[in-house]
Amino acid sequence: MSTSTLEVKQTHPRATEATKFVTLRGDYATGDFVMHRGGVLKEVVVAYESWGKLSDNHDNVVLVFGGLSSSAHACSSELDPSNGWWEYMIGPDKPIDTNKYYVVCVNTLGSCFGSTSPSSINPETGQVYGLDFPDLSIEDIAKSAHHALLDLGIDHVHTVVGSSMGGMSALAYALMYPQELDHLVSISAATRALPFTIAVRSLQREIIRCDPAFKNGLYPSDEKPTSGMVLARKLGLMSYRAAEEWHQRFNRARVSADRKSEDRFGIEFEVESYLDYNAHKFVKTFDANSYLYLSRVMDLFDVADHGGSVNAGLAMIQTKSALIIGVETDILFPVHQQQEIADGIRKTGSPVEFVQLNSINGHDSFLVDEEHFAPVMRKFFEQNSNA
Amino acid sequence: MSTSTLEVKQTHPRATEATKFVTLRGDYATGDFVMHRGGVLKEVVVAYESWGKLSDNHDNVVLVFGGLSSSAHACSSELDPSNGWWEYMIGPDKPIDTNKYYVVCVNTLGSCFGSTSPSSINPETGQVYGLDFPDLSIEDIAKSAHHALLDLGIDHVHTVVGSSMGGMSALAYALMYPQELDHLVSISAATRALPFTIAVRSLQREIIRCDPAFKNGLYPSDEKPTSGMVLARKLGLMSYRAAEEWHQRFNRARVSADRKSEDRFGIEFEVESYLDYNAHKFVKTFDANSYLYLSRVMDLFDVADHGGSVNAGLAMIQTKSALIIGVETDILFPVHQQQEIADGIRKTGSPVEFVQLNSINGHDSFLVDEEHFAPVMRKFFEQNSNA
Repeated sequence: MSTSTLEVKQTHPRATEATKFVTLRGDYATGDFVMHRGGVLKEVVVAYESWGKLSDNHDNVVLVFGGLSSSAHACSSELDPSNGWWEYMIGPDKPIDTNKYYVVCVNTLGSCFGSTSPSSINPETGQVYGLDFPDLSIEDIAKSAHHALLDLGIDHVHTVVGSSMGGMSALAYALMYPQELDHLVSISAATRALPFTIAVRSLQREIIRCDPAFKNGLYPSDEKPTSGMVLARKLGLMSYRAAEEWHQRFNRARVSADRKSEDRFGIEFEVESYLDYNAHKFVKTFDANSYLYLSRVMDLFDVADHGGSVNAGLAMIQTKSALIIGVETDILFPVHQQQEIADGIRKTGSPVEFVQLNSINGHDSFLVDEEHFAPVMRKFFEQNSNA
Repeated sequence: MSTSTLEVKQTHPRATEATKFVTLRGDYATGDFVMHRGGVLKEVVVAYESWGKLSDNHDNVVLVFGGLSSSAHACSSELDPSNGWWEYMIGPDKPIDTNKYYVVCVNTLGSCFGSTSPSSINPETGQVYGLDFPDLSIEDIAKSAHHALLDLGIDHVHTVVGSSMGGMSALAYALMYPQELDHLVSISAATRALPFTIAVRSLQREIIRCDPAFKNGLYPSDEKPTSGMVLARKLGLMSYRAAEEWHQRFNRARVSADRKSEDRFGIEFEVESYLDYNAHKFVKTFDANSYLYLSRVMDLFDVADHGGSVNAGLAMIQTKSALIIGVETDILFPVHQQQEIADGIRKTGSPVEFVQLNSINGHDSFLVDEEHFAPVMRKFFEQNSNA
């Protein structure tokens, strides 16, 4: 186990004292990290945070995979008291109770928040990867987390939890390393992307690539494709939330006169202002190349690549129990795709709890709808606790 | 009544021998066309096509308003045998039967297909309007059609039919000129846009405006903001169709190797190819400034501007009968908004038929789903025929 150099930390816009890094030993034979679709990475770093205490027999590890935009900072700690992206879910006496569990959240391979990514330096060339970063797959993300845990001395996980893209990573982890986890929680994930979702993400990528500042991925750090990223993120936000939520929240409210744009087609409605604020906030820290790679992995992932069919792939999963959660207002990973996951795993004989929540917040519900999510998660983690 | 000059025809990329033009006399007092939100237009031209024969007592006129991208060419004729955008709906023995009805389809004010628009010459300056075109409203579109008919000697309409944006125009027509129509057909329209729909359109406009070639609306005709228009149109197409349709049609089919892009993030899935083909086809003829203005009118339209509430506005409609059609898979003008229109008009005592179709084609169903739409429309027009 080795930890990061200061250099790595400096390239990560959200790094704090809580962020830890592990440089992977790589694959057994070569020490390289061989990618699922070909190509290799050398000296792969995985950023992570952890909460709680690893039990003596290592039987209380919860591995958390986040969505496209998540860092490893899932919740606050003494070292980083700022709220994490799943603050209500993880912590002492919270649904994933860090009094009982040792929770590890990894930053996704390819993400710009500390793990090796297109904005990292390629050790072979001394140059930033950019679009020379090899093809990335959900399988690589799962493997990087698996290697990270092994290098940290953890060879078995109590529960793997993933939401959105992280749910795909959790599914991949469970079918690639079926002997190395006991339980699985998959939230608003998919066995494979459907064409509407592919279209939404493809357009986001094309918008970024059409920004003249993108320069085929070789943008300097002070001239980033901000305009394209803002537009792409707005489209992302539209796909993450739900029409009815915005109806209730904004309806047709106008921005106040002092906030109204002078531009003939500028911001006039509150919903436009909301999107603009959130998109600009996002692009301050998120890297365009990481966005492209992580967006694409979700299009490409297909459980059917494992075994020839979705059900054959899901049949590789051998958990003691699984919790599959879907949200009725999710247009990106619709609830029928959660049902498919639950049905497929159930066919293996594993006990599966499928929960369909009527959250109003669309695909993003797991991030914000504590009321619906917390009790379901709390119950699952309480009933499976070894403590 | 006056007709167009050759100049007008030359600026219209879809003009044929079937396209007719009427230069409006304008408002009574000044001869100008006073806009709903302020500003005036001079020498307003409305392009239109017509089919069938005007009855001696002028009691068989059907006025058709199309969607954002529609020209006046709703169906073929001897003068223009090419298929129109509503070919299955209008014609001899078709649901809107031109053996009985005299059908007039107007090109929307602000559209680039022959009516006065941002790409027209401002007669006061001799320059193209561009973004100096005044604020446009659905009410202006309804008024321009009303003036066009009056100038053509038609002071009463048997039925006003509108779909999508055209449905908004039809509603505006019916509440602004309640004595001048007998029947109303509104398809996949809205009394007012909801925030999700506003967001989708706002982003399309911003994408266009961010294209460096847009040049604040002053792009030369040989250097148009094609890239922004393609991206915007793709987003439009996503909102017009339905996820389940694409699932059935494309699923995860890949393009053949010879059609696959070399680009790392280029086209790989059939759904991406479909969007790319259709978006490029669209932008060959559609003007960016027209797109911006027509997109914005749909955000701004609000029946509640007439009388202080949606129901007060709808209460101005006094038709002998109305047919309101909605589609279950429509995410842009959802079916509950069609129900709202039907309920509101019904409160006036007018007979209203509300039909909810389970078309799979989303908002665009009226364009393509003959099977569901034709029988409903045929029945309505047969039972109301004076012939």
